[in-house]
Amino acid sequence: MTWLQIIAYAGTFVFALTGALKARVYRMDIFGGAVLAFVTAYGGGTVRDVIIGARPVGWLNDYFGLGLVVLAVVAVFLLSDKLARLPVTIFLTDAIGLGLFTVLGIQKSLNLDVNSGFAVVMGVVSATFGGLLADILSNTVPDLLKKGELYATASLAGGIMHIVLTHYGAPEHLIFGVCIVLVVSVRVLSKWKRIYLPEL
Amino acid sequence: MTWLQIIAYAGTFVFALTGALKARVYRMDIFGGAVLAFVTAYGGGTVRDVIIGARPVGWLNDYFGLGLVVLAVVAVFLLSDKLARLPVTIFLTDAIGLGLFTVLGIQKSLNLDVNSGFAVVMGVVSATFGGLLADILSNTVPDLLKKGELYATASLAGGIMHIVLTHYGAPEHLIFGVCIVLVVSVRVLSKWKRIYLPEL
Amino acid sequence: MTWLQIIAYAGTFVFALTGALKARVYRMDIFGGAVLAFVTAYGGGTVRDVIIGARPVGWLNDYFGLGLVVLAVVAVFLLSDKLARLPVTIFLTDAIGLGLFTVLGIQKSLNLDVNSGFAVVMGVVSATFGGLLADILSNTVPDLLKKGELYATASLAGGIMHIVLTHYGAPEHLIFGVCIVLVVSVRVLSKWKRIYLPEL
Repeated sequence: MTWLQIIAYAGTFVFALTGALKARVYRMDIFGGAVLAFVTAYGGGTVRDVIIGARPVGWLNDYFGLGLVVLAVVAVFLLSDKLARLPVTIFLTDAIGLGLFTVLGIQKSLNLDVNSGFAVVMGVVSATFGGLLADILSNTVPDLLKKGELYATASLAGGIMHIVLTHYGAPEHLIFGVCIVLVVSVRVLSKWKRIYLPEL
Repeated sequence: MTWLQIIAYAGTFVFALTGALKARVYRMDIFGGAVLAFVTAYGGGTVRDVIIGARPVGWLNDYFGLGLVVLAVVAVFLLSDKLARLPVTIFLTDAIGLGLFTVLGIQKSLNLDVNSGFAVVMGVVSATFGGLLADILSNTVPDLLKKGELYATASLAGGIMHIVLTHYGAPEHLIFGVCIVLVVSVRVLSKWKRIYLPEL
Repeated sequence: MTWLQIIAYAGTFVFALTGALKARVYRMDIFGGAVLAFVTAYGGGTVRDVIIGARPVGWLNDYFGLGLVVLAVVAVFLLSDKLARLPVTIFLTDAIGLGLFTVLGIQKSLNLDVNSGFAVVMGVVSATFGGLLADILSNTVPDLLKKGELYATASLAGGIMHIVLTHYGAPEHLIFGVCIVLVVSVRVLSKWKRIYLPEL
């Protein structure tokens, strides 16, 4: 297992946790929780793969990833009271997941000959559309679209940095590291200093 | 036309009927009813085909299936008062549709080299995501995700039975029959005895 | 650039404008506006391409189209008060977009060996599902499904005319022109004379 795969699974687990916790807020049953966990973890990658024409989608036949999603649902079922006391931890792991999925989305797109600008768009889609689809399933306006802290913008900043460093021939590990740190930093700064995008 | 195709068309017609009746509840116009009927009947199979990489989706160019959907919309337009008096009939045909689409989803996935665990997931997706998409279009939280009777769970039970029987080399007709009967039984039992999944 | 491409880009720009103006109504931020503009402009074509198996989707790697969407968002950000005073202009450009996307959807489907009836369905999907997806993202019942003026029906009428003229071997430019004029006429007549589809 490569270092990138390990972090991809970490991102999957964290996003599945976020989805299952959201299902609890809406008082869904266990199946509803599993669907929301799965959609949050895999929704963004699925939309990306469909758009760039990867076939079949990346998570198919991957029992380990499926097991992580199930584990996240079980964890929320058993431990949700304790998890609710860890909002900062969840905020941070979600921010790290955002950075990881941005990098993964861009890499997968570049490997399929998507050009740089659209690879950045696909990075944002990979990182944010899972949560957006889960919000649609919960019948709420996606957090992502409402006025609020920088979320997609953090992903976008990391994505642009990724393309710039790639252009100048930086080694892969450096690109991944800088990009992820940048996404997490923008996200944390926005939360801390209450930096918002202007309303349209 | 094989026996399997006949039942597939029966499932398509029943699910289209369910979708059109739902459109009536939300006072949509005839076009809205046609969209909801189509999405309920074909939405689950479309999501499945996109995920497993079947291309193009199965219902494309199938005039007979399209005709059945149109027929269901016309039937609801002309006869909905009478159909409303048949809730038990509709419940039963919907349960049978659930079983049929579970079997079809698993078979199609296995034929495209999806492994057993994910084939079961694809069976549930085939059988339940049409109704879920129709609920999203109607701007309600999908019934499927809310605390309630066993629906997806019935599909899941049938799917697991399907894989177990396939593993032991049972003949295809036996597998299909047992699986469909199991799905319908779990569904009916859950309705009758008010068996619910626990809340997350 | 062919005549058809020029009009396709015009349709993309107009639909992106519609999406961004909708985001303003729901008080989304700039990112939300960009997503709604993009989804309105490209959502219908994406669903069509996924269903008919075009891979990757048509708008990928097309910087010019992406630039038009960004331009529409910037225009709404800077000029929305003036745009709000142009409801008739926007109604007309949207009607023209409806006609253009109907023609494009049918042509692309026929080129991929979709048969005539389903090509008409794909024309309607191309022309209407972008707005429908944007409505889902905004957490409202899609306008398209509610009782109201003829919209999808205008697209359907143009699509049927397209297939009839193609059957009789009419030259391409005539087909495109007649079809677009018919869609716009039905749309304008419905608005003007308040012609509605009956409720289901």
